[in-house]
Amino acid sequence: MNRITATYDIESPVGVARAAQVLAGEQSTGTFTRLAAETDELRERSAARIEKIEITGSRPTPSLPSRKTGDSYERGLVTVSWSLDNFGTSLPTLLSTLAGNLFELAELSAIRLVEMQLPSAFATDHPGPQFGAPGTRDFMGGHQGPVIGTIIKPSVGLNPSETAALVKTLVEAGIDFIKDDELQANGPHCLFEERVKEVSRVINTHADQTGKKVMYAFNLTDEIDQMWRNLELLEAHGGTCAMVCISSVGLTGLRALRDRSPMTIHGHRAGWGIYSRSPNIGISFPVMQKLWRLAGADHLHVNGLANKFTESDDVIAASATSVQTPVAEGGSAHLAMPVYSSGQTVWQIDPARSLLGNDDFIFCAGGGILSHPSGAAAGVIALRQAADAARSGIDIKDYAKEHSELQGAVDTFPEKRITLQGQ
Amino acid sequence: MNRITATYDIESPVGVARAAQVLAGEQSTGTFTRLAAETDELRERSAARIEKIEITGSRPTPSLPSRKTGDSYERGLVTVSWSLDNFGTSLPTLLSTLAGNLFELAELSAIRLVEMQLPSAFATDHPGPQFGAPGTRDFMGGHQGPVIGTIIKPSVGLNPSETAALVKTLVEAGIDFIKDDELQANGPHCLFEERVKEVSRVINTHADQTGKKVMYAFNLTDEIDQMWRNLELLEAHGGTCAMVCISSVGLTGLRALRDRSPMTIHGHRAGWGIYSRSPNIGISFPVMQKLWRLAGADHLHVNGLANKFTESDDVIAASATSVQTPVAEGGSAHLAMPVYSSGQTVWQIDPARSLLGNDDFIFCAGGGILSHPSGAAAGVIALRQAADAARSGIDIKDYAKEHSELQGAVDTFPEKRITLQGQ
Repeated sequence: MNRITATYDIESPVGVARAAQVLAGEQSTGTFTRLAAETDELRERSAARIEKIEITGSRPTPSLPSRKTGDSYERGLVTVSWSLDNFGTSLPTLLSTLAGNLFELAELSAIRLVEMQLPSAFATDHPGPQFGAPGTRDFMGGHQGPVIGTIIKPSVGLNPSETAALVKTLVEAGIDFIKDDELQANGPHCLFEERVKEVSRVINTHADQTGKKVMYAFNLTDEIDQMWRNLELLEAHGGTCAMVCISSVGLTGLRALRDRSPMTIHGHRAGWGIYSRSPNIGISFPVMQKLWRLAGADHLHVNGLANKFTESDDVIAASATSVQTPVAEGGSAHLAMPVYSSGQTVWQIDPARSLLGNDDFIFCAGGGILSHPSGAAAGVIALRQAADAARSGIDIKDYAKEHSELQGAVDTFPEKRITLQGQ
Repeated sequence: MNRITATYDIESPVGVARAAQVLAGEQSTGTFTRLAAETDELRERSAARIEKIEITGSRPTPSLPSRKTGDSYERGLVTVSWSLDNFGTSLPTLLSTLAGNLFELAELSAIRLVEMQLPSAFATDHPGPQFGAPGTRDFMGGHQGPVIGTIIKPSVGLNPSETAALVKTLVEAGIDFIKDDELQANGPHCLFEERVKEVSRVINTHADQTGKKVMYAFNLTDEIDQMWRNLELLEAHGGTCAMVCISSVGLTGLRALRDRSPMTIHGHRAGWGIYSRSPNIGISFPVMQKLWRLAGADHLHVNGLANKFTESDDVIAASATSVQTPVAEGGSAHLAMPVYSSGQTVWQIDPARSLLGNDDFIFCAGGGILSHPSGAAAGVIALRQAADAARSGIDIKDYAKEHSELQGAVDTFPEKRITLQGQ
């Protein structure tokens, strides 16, 4: 297979079939009216091809404002393909082509990029995640089971020594993984360099004493040159994880980080709502995460089941499993670890694990650890017990009867209802 | 002024005032419930502050799907401010903060970032456009008036020598500026290096013969290292303009380019529809272009009046003027040149110039040049005559009576109706 295919959920006042032609024209030869220089051979080689059209409905008013109006607005799924010859395997140009001007076409009153299939050349030409789940476990000294993590809160305001003091509490509670907040990178009151020094001292001392190396995801989000310097600093202090806000630095920033990183890259998706929030415009996570994995992210945030934000559980399930699905139609699978977070407690571990069928995920809880009635250490133990129960196929309420920390959590945190389609 | 302010157009099932508190909490201290470590001093220093709330309406159903529902959904404008102490002048962290997780809050059924004011520290700490309009004119040998440009079409499919042949026709027609298509960067059938060599030979030969150096915006969009190599190649061939698809490379990619560019940076906004298309989610262009200018774009695409896409003329007017408005509350103004394109003919020059009040813009036309009944050269001359008429305050229909090329264009291209508020 030598073609890239993309499926769009579109709505149009001129009908889905006609709108698909306009879309394919705009995103390849670039003109719907044939120009003099546009020979048949050129068109055959370069024109985007409409592979499939499925009409799904119609409505009397447009979902998004547009210059073009009609009597009705037909909706449907359109699959379009491009030859690798158009732009090779360049990720930025893939983005310009599959997610470029087409979002502004007047013939469309809704357009979401919902699926994308890549030929194996993409898996071959891009480095992908350097470590993934196996490398993450290695950095942690051969960690077994899901990685139980937490987040530094308050998000901003703590200085480096206050941050380190909180980290000390958390590592002593037995946590596997801690991350900076996405709002905290290199603020004047919590300079990156100072934070790295203070926090690393705590992590490394704890590792020396216990043999357990807690993974700390330092948020090094910044300009390229500075991120590279930040990586060097992290490496000098035994760092094992670099966190980056992918949308804030962009795709090439992520790749530049991957090219020089000796440690795992923790991909945060702050700003993702712009892409995900509207059913009528944007890009699905299963599409976007392929680009992020090809560019080198080892861990990718996927929100959490029964989260405090807006995505439904079905969206979370699709996002989490997508990260563990081969990135292209051949070549290296380039799998990453999904990171669950947002309002997570012992109740979400079983369903989070079930939909993956393995322990290769990071499970971040804040209040779900710190609000345990017997303290943070019991909070961490309760989450591990919940993961053990999930692995053994035992209901956590039953498992809790013989595990007091889990019982404490089950009694404390309200049961969350997870609603997955077909369950 | 030591604070960054942002205005959001939000809608909420819990009321605008309450939603504003949640938003401010999520994007600063990060918890609405106060944590132990969150002292009064920390809150005073770090919490985002709600500066202003203006209720604009209410509706019975949510504009975007959300987990939280209500009896009605109140809409309003909310202005929030952050201290520079939270994150300094880092552009990526500014983006994570002002346009991060808040887009996913369940308390919001619509959220658009519509305005942003930056303290002068941003203008001081960032390089901004290196050349802007004055430098662009210098590269062109002291060009006067608006820059008349065009785009290589078909977008993809031409090989380097076919591209160069088309460029020869265009430079001989007297064009000032030519740009690659955003879909054409380094495709296998039109490798960047070959295209640069072939096209530069035409541009440089024409410059030697006529003294006029046409500016060609080579689309060097790629990974960081490759963009830097592309810059070197361009410089070696006398290049004066590097085009980049900003959303495809990301903010740090743009800045990395700026740091090493000896030539103008032409910022294309492919994919902008994701941010602009929905009234209920996204970021306004006047906000985003500030980041792009601070990161170093000299030219920024703003779509065109009466364009073939979806933005209204009022949006175009706001976008174009924003690029010529000081970027922060003090310091260097860091002005860029707006680039008009999309369905542009002689009819749009006067309104495009009027709303700026100057000639510091690039005006790109495709069919508006090539479809002139007397050929491309007459097409370019007609656009210059239209610009002369605009500068002199003469209606183009009157000016056309004594300028045959303009008359040909006026007779050929249908008059476009521009509808600007208050006109």
